[in-house]
Amino acid sequence: MKIYDFKGFPNPARVRIALAEKGMTDRVEFVSVNVPAGEHKLPAFVAKNPSAAVPVLELDDGTTIAECTAITEYIDNIDGTPTLTGVTAKERAVIQMMQRRAEAELMDAVGTYFHHATPGLGAKIELYQNREWGEKSRDRAIAGMRYFDRVLGTQAYLAGENFSMADITAFVGLGFADFAKIAIPADLPHLHAWRARIAARPGVMAS
Amino acid sequence: MKIYDFKGFPNPARVRIALAEKGMTDRVEFVSVNVPAGEHKLPAFVAKNPSAAVPVLELDDGTTIAECTAITEYIDNIDGTPTLTGVTAKERAVIQMMQRRAEAELMDAVGTYFHHATPGLGAKIELYQNREWGEKSRDRAIAGMRYFDRVLGTQAYLAGENFSMADITAFVGLGFADFAKIAIPADLPHLHAWRARIAARPGVMAS
Ligand SMILES: N[C@@H](CCC(=O)N[C@@H](CS)C(=O)NCC(=O)O)C(=O)O
Ligand SMILES: N[C@@H](CCC(=O)N[C@@H](CS)C(=O)NCC(=O)O)C(=O)O
Repeated sequence: MKIYDFKGFPNPARVRIALAEKGMTDRVEFVSVNVPAGEHKLPAFVAKNPSAAVPVLELDDGTTIAECTAITEYIDNIDGTPTLTGVTAKERAVIQMMQRRAEAELMDAVGTYFHHATPGLGAKIELYQNREWGEKSRDRAIAGMRYFDRVLGTQAYLAGENFSMADITAFVGLGFADFAKIAIPADLPHLHAWRARIAARPGVMAS
Repeated sequence: MKIYDFKGFPNPARVRIALAEKGMTDRVEFVSVNVPAGEHKLPAFVAKNPSAAVPVLELDDGTTIAECTAITEYIDNIDGTPTLTGVTAKERAVIQMMQRRAEAELMDAVGTYFHHATPGLGAKIELYQNREWGEKSRDRAIAGMRYFDRVLGTQAYLAGENFSMADITAFVGLGFADFAKIAIPADLPHLHAWRARIAARPGVMAS
């Protein structure tokens, strides 16, 4: 299988961590798409993902899968032993809920700030910006950090006592916040301790 | 199990259709949360869902699950025979991708238009509005309809030849567009035909 992405960018990082956690990185051929140059907006790539974004997984039968959650679902289930997306109905539901929150309240909120209230990827890519909405989204991201700190005050990981795809999303979201120069409040001890623990995981270090 | 929701609202409708499709409606006790009156913003409800939105599923052990995707995941897997979220890794991934697109490019785009560029739920609930962003989101919803029409030109349902949770999300998204007075373009024959087919499903009619 192939992954079309751009190394170092946040959404690609989510899938690279998932692959490393599963020990599957060497089963993938990576194809670089030059996002800063706008290559993801050209017809050849839009045919693979109409949303014009990376990463995209391409299976050997030609099926293309976009969206990190969907790609992670595939990676995690293809070997028959899911470790990132849950096994029971309840585990699956709690992980999906927390993953969705990590995306909406952190990852995507930071992304909206970056693309709307900063120069983002530059004038060639950022064809429309709404600064006020971008700044609201930064406030939302900070509120999200406070919420996750509260959650991590009572459990080891975002979806309970086990690492999951929700942790990957939130961890990458914090890295994206650093990159976008959103200060992570210092008074969130559980979030900072969790972040250090995630950063030290072999899968995360290898990705 | 209990569902906290408000009958007639779009996100609650997604879960009610999922329950009816699974034949599980009578296993649920519905608890009405008066969203137009702001009951979902009171501490008792925010303790169940920090995002202050309906629906919320409460399990008999007290676990609360928010987010329609997560609730649907639970409902679909609890009987051991998933019919809405896929079985194989590839089915699961394609459904998650299309469900995410139905949410981002239609359901949530319509919601952003409704909450930001119309009076929405009224001044008591809509504490911040960004009209320009709302109008951009309406354009995005219409582009989403055009994309789904193209998809439905080559396959029976959004994720392939079988009905799935992605169809539920998009179907409810179109109903929300009607409610928000976003005109669905007439020149989308595949989308309109699919909509009529979904509306005629026993599960959808019963919900
Ligand atoms: N929800 C998508 C987000 C993908 C995304 O936004 N990717 C960024 C790179 S981190 C991108 O390709 N951006 C292109 C652009 O902003 O034009 C996912 O989960 O994959
Ligand atoms: N992504 C959420 C969306 C939930 C949502 O936005 N629900 C609406 C009702 S359709 C709500 O409770 N809105 C409250 C508000 O806007 O204050 C889900 O999938 O459940």
